[in-house]
Amino acid sequence: MSDILKGKPVADAISAQIREKVEKLKQDKITPTLAILRVGEREDDLSYERGTMKRCENTGVAVKNIILPEDIDEKSFFETLENLNSDNQIHGILMFRPLPKHLDGERARCMLNPQKDVDGCTDGSLAGVFTNSKSGFAPCTAEAAMEILKFYGIDPAGKRAVVIGRSLVIGRPVAMLLMHANATVTICHTKTQNMAEIVREADIVICASGQMESIGKEFLAPGQTVIDVGIGWNEQKQKLCGDVIFEEADEVAAITPVPGGVGAVTTSILVRHVVEAAKK
Amino acid sequence: MSDILKGKPVADAISAQIREKVEKLKQDKITPTLAILRVGEREDDLSYERGTMKRCENTGVAVKNIILPEDIDEKSFFETLENLNSDNQIHGILMFRPLPKHLDGERARCMLNPQKDVDGCTDGSLAGVFTNSKSGFAPCTAEAAMEILKFYGIDPAGKRAVVIGRSLVIGRPVAMLLMHANATVTICHTKTQNMAEIVREADIVICASGQMESIGKEFLAPGQTVIDVGIGWNEQKQKLCGDVIFEEADEVAAITPVPGGVGAVTTSILVRHVVEAAKK
Repeated sequence: MSDILKGKPVADAISAQIREKVEKLKQDKITPTLAILRVGEREDDLSYERGTMKRCENTGVAVKNIILPEDIDEKSFFETLENLNSDNQIHGILMFRPLPKHLDGERARCMLNPQKDVDGCTDGSLAGVFTNSKSGFAPCTAEAAMEILKFYGIDPAGKRAVVIGRSLVIGRPVAMLLMHANATVTICHTKTQNMAEIVREADIVICASGQMESIGKEFLAPGQTVIDVGIGWNEQKQKLCGDVIFEEADEVAAITPVPGGVGAVTTSILVRHVVEAAKK
Repeated sequence: MSDILKGKPVADAISAQIREKVEKLKQDKITPTLAILRVGEREDDLSYERGTMKRCENTGVAVKNIILPEDIDEKSFFETLENLNSDNQIHGILMFRPLPKHLDGERARCMLNPQKDVDGCTDGSLAGVFTNSKSGFAPCTAEAAMEILKFYGIDPAGKRAVVIGRSLVIGRPVAMLLMHANATVTICHTKTQNMAEIVREADIVICASGQMESIGKEFLAPGQTVIDVGIGWNEQKQKLCGDVIFEEADEVAAITPVPGGVGAVTTSILVRHVVEAAKK
């Protein structure tokens, strides 16, 4: 029977730290403020927006919602973004991506003020993750995975970590964060051969391929800590599932549940970034 | 007996390609020009400068040498750098680092025009290596290692690669380049445990720890391709040596010699970057 690494206590601990910092900032007449920029009404975006707003409310961080119609013209969109960039009352910007196809998403990403890039998507933030310069912000999900390890006392130093997936939102940045924490990191991806064998050698496994229930018992070994970043609706089982077949992970030392694992921590990291941006 | 992957044929092939491109640019009245900015007279810098100038001469790329005294004041140094940044006749800048201690090296690195950063040291270049956006330039030594694999027909796709060393000039960037080429990459470093065992599992080994003759036969296995990035003077043997104990690598499939391996390719990559910068 594995330990279940729930996200909620981690998120609660981070929220408590945030509240303290927000109190101090308010004494200096600063209210940390997040702008949420959403185009259209995608269900994923709406769900993440609700979670973020709840977390902000809960910690004293203000939110400014900017909701633009799906068919907004390019000029108006970029004017809106530019205004948020230059507005001194806005400390962080969460811009939902991908944008609708008629808007240039790459241009928007590059235009975003790196100091307000609390979601860690600009080149400045990604360079900071790569160089370990602490400038910019790491992508929230990658940092959430690291916070869970830290909260539960699992030090990556000297351990073998395998990251499954090489995306820029989670796989690559979490690999760098683990390496900065002195783990020996291997990155697996769609072109990896004998993946099960490689994953079995790991002490820490980060599952971030986005392939639901693709990691079964042949990938896992006793003693491992498994962080499951995936989340999706399993039509057959009629429930949310991660990248791991949870029932087959009963011999690992510890595993994050889905839902209620990494996802529960991500918004608290985002809000922490807003407060850090406001402090700067 | 291993195949010896010499650098010279690789460098010669690249030089031939460069000459063709330079010819075309000259028809458009553009002479690709590299500025070499050196402070003081460090032997390492002088040696690399000589190699670079020879390669430039050999390919039709112009060089502008800017040599500043060791004790130059900060204001004059940064004015010089700013002038090179804004000079339209200069396409690439090679700034030797580390700078003397009284000059702010980090400020200089950040100030360097990313479009002229042919040595791949700015955040813009490093972000490009991390994101695989092809913007900026990869650090030359990392790209040289990849060129050697390519020249000798060793495709990293699907193979296991182990990089020993996590520096920003070679370890981390070459790990990313290998991953973009679809290898399954593991990064080892000073905090790695059981390193020999991990390295033995690799198909491709990149030795970039800078620890002379630290990789002996217990790290190596038949069938491996070994790229030795290290170079240093071995006092005892009275010759240049790499990170690998060369005599103990006789069972691997192929290995780069030191000297005459990666080092022989690095300057041709630098010069290729100057031509690419001029084309842009």
